[in-house]
Amino acid sequence: MMNQTKLFENIVRKRSFLCVGLDSEIDKIPSFLLKEKNPVLEFNKRIIDATHKYSVAYKPNVAFYECYGAKGWETLEATVRYIKENYPDIFVIADAKRGDIGNTSKMYAKAFFENMPFDAITVAPYMGEDSVTPFLSYSDKWVVLLALTSNKGADDFQYHNEDGIKLFERVLSVSQKWGNINNMMYVVGATRAEMLKEIRQLIPDHFLLVPGVGAQGGNLHDVVHYGMNSKCGLLVNSSRGIIFSDSTENFDKVAGEKAKEMQTEMEKYLSEHNLI
Amino acid sequence: MMNQTKLFENIVRKRSFLCVGLDSEIDKIPSFLLKEKNPVLEFNKRIIDATHKYSVAYKPNVAFYECYGAKGWETLEATVRYIKENYPDIFVIADAKRGDIGNTSKMYAKAFFENMPFDAITVAPYMGEDSVTPFLSYSDKWVVLLALTSNKGADDFQYHNEDGIKLFERVLSVSQKWGNINNMMYVVGATRAEMLKEIRQLIPDHFLLVPGVGAQGGNLHDVVHYGMNSKCGLLVNSSRGIIFSDSTENFDKVAGEKAKEMQTEMEKYLSEHNLI
Repeated sequence: MMNQTKLFENIVRKRSFLCVGLDSEIDKIPSFLLKEKNPVLEFNKRIIDATHKYSVAYKPNVAFYECYGAKGWETLEATVRYIKENYPDIFVIADAKRGDIGNTSKMYAKAFFENMPFDAITVAPYMGEDSVTPFLSYSDKWVVLLALTSNKGADDFQYHNEDGIKLFERVLSVSQKWGNINNMMYVVGATRAEMLKEIRQLIPDHFLLVPGVGAQGGNLHDVVHYGMNSKCGLLVNSSRGIIFSDSTENFDKVAGEKAKEMQTEMEKYLSEHNLI
Repeated sequence: MMNQTKLFENIVRKRSFLCVGLDSEIDKIPSFLLKEKNPVLEFNKRIIDATHKYSVAYKPNVAFYECYGAKGWETLEATVRYIKENYPDIFVIADAKRGDIGNTSKMYAKAFFENMPFDAITVAPYMGEDSVTPFLSYSDKWVVLLALTSNKGADDFQYHNEDGIKLFERVLSVSQKWGNINNMMYVVGATRAEMLKEIRQLIPDHFLLVPGVGAQGGNLHDVVHYGMNSKCGLLVNSSRGIIFSDSTENFDKVAGEKAKEMQTEMEKYLSEHNLI
């Protein structure tokens, strides 16, 4: 059962709050893998085997599989099964940004939680409560709701301000009633780390999934400074900075070293906060 | 080339602005089809053959395919190909509600516009400009951006009001700069028909995709009254009310009759507005 307590136990045990993003684009994986029957799956397996010691979560980005149609979907299914069969304690997030009217979200939930053994799915909040709650009807499954994203376009609507309440703040406060700290977390981009202080006043206890460290310019120190709570409360994602750091036969070894570097930095922060 | 002029020509020729939603849930299709190798594909083909004369667009709801994994994805691919091969003038919308940071939206665009011959995709606006523009980089392809949706949860965030501008209105005005009337349209739920008057002041010329007529309680008369413009400007979707109206061997014939009923009503409105 992957509740918040269990997630924190894994973080303490591994001395890491690293989530490895599996944005496994075929044009970017080492070319020698192209001779494999399923190059992306082979790439993922080797990345997972090399990084699992240093990470508590994986986050396949669904778009990078979906763009190959049914075959890509098979790779996604095989990837999440590979993680769950070999490393059952690891939290696996489908970065899918889904969300639709209730009877449709129910079908998306079926896709990711019944047909595939994902623990969590990222969901877009625009359509409101009935677009999110179908994902929360599964015990032990999580919604990771978009709040404040790491991209430039976050400025277009997420700061829309009603009586001093920005849209992303309203998303945080309204959506808390839909679930609880054991089945909801929020996406807050590392590129907006300074906003984490304010966000922690609204949601002191929820976990946050933080993308944008590394390639997108976010800074781990600031994320920890403003975002860490008494149960760590952070899953920090890195994708390109780990998985594409080398394109030789040693790519997996190098990815493992990059993951270990992040884990070492995270261990230091966990220790400074007296969590380990 | 499916620009706005061509879309309007098709509407005039067919005397219809009907979009048939292919929410083809296996539990709801006639049970005698379950003996087929691919029951959902067979269902879709027969529905399409029976309704194409009365409709200008189809809208497969991606969730209803995705929930069967790779096999469901194959059915989706085969469905859109079947429409394009047999009825190339019909506009086909992937109701996918996608949207992510730029390099990820690019992959979703590849999935729906390169790997499959969809004309359009529904996109959620929460992540702003760079989550939408990758879909607009294809000539002859459309984004259907969520503005005001038909579900109850629309009330949670879409009316968030900054200085008299509601979030959905900001979405309409800001996003107009990203594309034009030949590559963007907007989702406005029929259950919010009274809002169409105000919406038409912001976007007089864009097409609107209007779900929620029928099963969700929306009213076609009101949608036309407030939303129709000089190029019709409306695609009105009906899913369950057409495709699941009969469960016997005659289901396709009955679906055709239901589609014809809607077309007949639409013809009357087009005539009243002097568009045919």
